[in-house]
Amino acid sequence: MTERDVRALQQRLADFAEARDWQPYHTPKNLASALSVEAAELVEIFQWLTPEQSAKVMDDPKFAHRVTDEVADVLAYLLQLCEVLGIDALEALAAKIDRNEQRFPVGSAEPKIPRRHSAE
Amino acid sequence: MTERDVRALQQRLADFAEARDWQPYHTPKNLASALSVEAAELVEIFQWLTPEQSAKVMDDPKFAHRVTDEVADVLAYLLQLCEVLGIDALEALAAKIDRNEQRFPVGSAEPKIPRRHSAE
Amino acid sequence: MTERDVRALQQRLADFAEARDWQPYHTPKNLASALSVEAAELVEIFQWLTPEQSAKVMDDPKFAHRVTDEVADVLAYLLQLCEVLGIDALEALAAKIDRNEQRFPVGSAEPKIPRRHSAE
Amino acid sequence: MTERDVRALQQRLADFAEARDWQPYHTPKNLASALSVEAAELVEIFQWLTPEQSAKVMDDPKFAHRVTDEVADVLAYLLQLCEVLGIDALEALAAKIDRNEQRFPVGSAEPKIPRRHSAE
Repeated sequence: MTERDVRALQQRLADFAEARDWQPYHTPKNLASALSVEAAELVEIFQWLTPEQSAKVMDDPKFAHRVTDEVADVLAYLLQLCEVLGIDALEALAAKIDRNEQRFPVGSAEPKIPRRHSAE
Repeated sequence: MTERDVRALQQRLADFAEARDWQPYHTPKNLASALSVEAAELVEIFQWLTPEQSAKVMDDPKFAHRVTDEVADVLAYLLQLCEVLGIDALEALAAKIDRNEQRFPVGSAEPKIPRRHSAE
Repeated sequence: MTERDVRALQQRLADFAEARDWQPYHTPKNLASALSVEAAELVEIFQWLTPEQSAKVMDDPKFAHRVTDEVADVLAYLLQLCEVLGIDALEALAAKIDRNEQRFPVGSAEPKIPRRHSAE
Repeated sequence: MTERDVRALQQRLADFAEARDWQPYHTPKNLASALSVEAAELVEIFQWLTPEQSAKVMDDPKFAHRVTDEVADVLAYLLQLCEVLGIDALEALAAKIDRNEQRFPVGSAEPKIPRRHSAE
């Protein structure tokens, strides 16, 4: 399980970049851009699919591989960004869920779409 | 520490969406788009900063809060996408790092920029 | 009609930036990022909509205004990027359509999705 | 000059899609996603470059071709989106510049960065 631990992965990514002298490229600004580029590659897989086709994307091994690969790339840049900024991603997410539980109470009348379009 | 465990967070996110009847919106296609939108909000923070300013972004509490919040949003959508697709994000990343260690051997001559621009 | 001419708009944008001393921020790298951020704001409008809802987005004046505004922002950054790089956007597009007419001949068997997923 | 006219290009794009039966894929939602994916491909070109390197990107013919090609793709999807939504992109931009001239008066004290971070 060590292999799969977030901190261990973050360390492997840092060692990987250091061994290749890539740190000068890894400014927070560049890592945020790289993250958004990988997120777009994920979007690209789905861009012409109907909602129904998108729900079955893992049934096709070629699509499944591509999606899994892009997920890994997004996570890699997210963890590298957190590393250079000293952010604990899991703690940030736990705190955000706490806030969202206040912000969107269960059983409130409004559905997701109108709320998001008015509030954001 | 349960709080910070990836699987536990993924479950909290799933429960959160279910309690608000948001699952119909959470197609893989929509979640990938939402992830890319959050990644862009992270990019927006850095878009006019110099590389040097970007490296000091956590020194300003307002920026630090914004960055941390967007990191949480990106991770939230990434984990929700993995949940609906049945992808283990940490395993995917571990496998990707393994592949990258083959693809970019330490000490190979080419620096990052030319390589990435020719290979990707 | 001068108002609506592409070159005239490009000049207005350049004058606007110059009058505010914004040129130092307008590196090609930053303008490309800003363009992608605005594109994401456009995506955000549609992210939870069904395909059918997305087709009717202009029926709601509030949505219509938002979409039109984001379209303007995307075009503004695209033209500013072209300005600093010396690219003629309309000529680039005309050349691209020419190439695509060769690349995707009418009546070829394959529909869009498989082709794009294999070729790109 | 007809070739380079925005409306003529928009019509060529519409004819191109119609001849290939691609209209069903061209929902506003999908076109907005496709636009954001192309914008990210533009960002990718610049992602590891310094501001200075990014300013010289057109000096290298390979980079120049790539940038020009991605600019064309972004404009293509922007015009197709405008076509399906009935938006006049140039008019939208002219109106936006008018509004921005009010919003950011020349000679106001604040520089770009603080303003944008507080106002957006």
